[in-house]
Amino acid sequence: MSQPAPTLAAGSVGVVETRHLDLPEPVRLDCGRELHPVRVAYETYGALSPRRDNVILVCHALSGDAHAAGLSKAPSGESTRDGFGAADRDGAGGKGLGWWDGMIGPGKAFDTDRYFVISTNLLGGCRGTTGPSSIDPATGLPYGPDFPVITVADMVRTQRAFLDVLGIERLAAVAGGSLGGMQALEWAVLYPGQVDAVVAIAGTHALHPQGVAWNAIARDSIMRDPAWQGGRYYGTGRAPDAGMGIGRMVGHITYLSAPALEAKFGRRLQGSDEIRYTITEAEFEVESYLRHQADSFVRRFDANTYLYTSRALTYFDLARQHGGGSLARALDGVSARTLLIAFSSDWLYPPSASQEIEQALRALGKPVELQVIEAPYGHDCFLLEEARQTPIIRRFLARPV
Amino acid sequence: MSQPAPTLAAGSVGVVETRHLDLPEPVRLDCGRELHPVRVAYETYGALSPRRDNVILVCHALSGDAHAAGLSKAPSGESTRDGFGAADRDGAGGKGLGWWDGMIGPGKAFDTDRYFVISTNLLGGCRGTTGPSSIDPATGLPYGPDFPVITVADMVRTQRAFLDVLGIERLAAVAGGSLGGMQALEWAVLYPGQVDAVVAIAGTHALHPQGVAWNAIARDSIMRDPAWQGGRYYGTGRAPDAGMGIGRMVGHITYLSAPALEAKFGRRLQGSDEIRYTITEAEFEVESYLRHQADSFVRRFDANTYLYTSRALTYFDLARQHGGGSLARALDGVSARTLLIAFSSDWLYPPSASQEIEQALRALGKPVELQVIEAPYGHDCFLLEEARQTPIIRRFLARPV
Repeated sequence: MSQPAPTLAAGSVGVVETRHLDLPEPVRLDCGRELHPVRVAYETYGALSPRRDNVILVCHALSGDAHAAGLSKAPSGESTRDGFGAADRDGAGGKGLGWWDGMIGPGKAFDTDRYFVISTNLLGGCRGTTGPSSIDPATGLPYGPDFPVITVADMVRTQRAFLDVLGIERLAAVAGGSLGGMQALEWAVLYPGQVDAVVAIAGTHALHPQGVAWNAIARDSIMRDPAWQGGRYYGTGRAPDAGMGIGRMVGHITYLSAPALEAKFGRRLQGSDEIRYTITEAEFEVESYLRHQADSFVRRFDANTYLYTSRALTYFDLARQHGGGSLARALDGVSARTLLIAFSSDWLYPPSASQEIEQALRALGKPVELQVIEAPYGHDCFLLEEARQTPIIRRFLARPV
Repeated sequence: MSQPAPTLAAGSVGVVETRHLDLPEPVRLDCGRELHPVRVAYETYGALSPRRDNVILVCHALSGDAHAAGLSKAPSGESTRDGFGAADRDGAGGKGLGWWDGMIGPGKAFDTDRYFVISTNLLGGCRGTTGPSSIDPATGLPYGPDFPVITVADMVRTQRAFLDVLGIERLAAVAGGSLGGMQALEWAVLYPGQVDAVVAIAGTHALHPQGVAWNAIARDSIMRDPAWQGGRYYGTGRAPDAGMGIGRMVGHITYLSAPALEAKFGRRLQGSDEIRYTITEAEFEVESYLRHQADSFVRRFDANTYLYTSRALTYFDLARQHGGGSLARALDGVSARTLLIAFSSDWLYPPSASQEIEQALRALGKPVELQVIEAPYGHDCFLLEEARQTPIIRRFLARPV
């Protein structure tokens, strides 16, 4: 499907380029290992203030990358905006536009007239930051399954080390949705003196067991694909596309709500009112949609990165990691102001999870605001409901610290 | 895990044997093809009245079989009661007990002191009734992908032909849950003069798009497994166990509710409070549970039967098939009394679907009763909430026609 070339609308950050930076020191990981070298892919939007006090770090979700805003300079111009399948649904994202382009730019939620916005590809990623597809210096081959198991805290430590190199000590805010929201919360816990404000959208302090289960299914689907080859598929000409496609389909359904699927597809058949009696072909529109989403995803994403990132977000559990099982204890040291946004129809990262965070912070006397937005699109809302999030975030950020 | 040998409790129908019957005529299918020969596996419980007017046909769900009640005479004694993963959850089912043993027997919901209960394995099945693993007389080899695509109506036509051979003209009732409920409703539409009462539990008149999507994912997972071999895996020593296991995991989660998973597993780790940092191993209890369910399922079920049965329940759409898009028109000829039971936490076959059937029947002036049971276990409730369904069903069946 050819699309018209994207044009830069008012409020765009313009043409941007993903850059790379090598960390000078190894990153110490939760699992006990050290990782070195670590390269970080990043983009920046806006200008750093002389006092370096206007930095907002945005953190992406499972399948995102550093290209959060603007039009990519890369000639491939591949969209990253369909990180949650939203690309074909809101009509806003075009080829080459960043995954949060609607939120980052002059006058937008993260206002580049005022803030210096930084976006990095997360540790373990496959879009420029060191991950399982990177070369292991010990062997000269891609890490594959030898890549260390990482956590959300490890992602945040990597971002911390990256900002150190840039000479940025404090963050005016750290923000993200989904797994990005987990990173934002982890920042507030790990580096309490260095974050002024947290914006955690469609996030949670710990994925519920059904979410753990969906992630386990997606990972098992990859690992049961013979083409995965124990994770050493690089250079073999085969990759576990079939299995990762299934995992992606599962993900898609969990990112949407049942009513959203009803509204978008109903039980409509593909180009016919008559059943064609086929087992192998996609007959319902929703079946065809899922296959299309799976096929386009596997072309741009690395299966091992999916495994490691999914594992990290499954492990994420603020109470267990930082509070001996108590969320209150885990959040006790937080000094940042916190904005939580949740969506009424999000059953993967439900409002109840954000409410638990809010109550814990409130009980500790911490400044916290929770906004539950009534919207029908499920978890995907965090990429779709930009217009309604924008005034909430702008107002929150503008408040005097 | 060894279990004590099952004992026959009071109310049991005793030791039973699955028998087989060959239909004398071909079955004409919705797809236009005729299927012959067709063998039907069945069990009966109770005694046929001299007037043959006390017959209840029970219809099983996706992964069930003819062994609905009592203790199987088959030496393998393999449980069929975990058709919806309920086996290990309610403690009632043991090795060799039928999948609806709690509902069929003397004094039970389907009271064998009064009724002659018949259970058949559905058309396309893999437990004795003709299906894709049966021998195609045209080739002398298993049908595999040459088996015709079947519908719920085809399943019901096969049951009708089977009952003809037994000399049974009328049904006092037809009953089933999930796909079994679809069959029960289809009976009332296809053979309105021959069914006195319908009991459709956790059923629907048409699966919603999210349910269509889950089924598509399960089927694609099987078909993407290279061991599926285009459906011709019989006799090759390989079967798409990996893919069907993933499909079964997806199914399991959809049969349960998020709160049920929370109550059963929480975020508990396997035998440890510490994360072990592993991608490949199951760390959370819910992960281990899913793998176990997948492994036990693939040992007893045929992947092609899964494909065909899943396709049939996806196609099922009373309004489209029988009403030109109108549910009212589809149900216009129904003469049976209808009992609908739904469960509050069932998000796969939600109460709203049963409500739509109830409203359509009521508007047509048909006798209908809907009971929505508040229960937390999701779709699985239909196999778990036997104690609460029993008085509802007994009262409904006892009512004068």
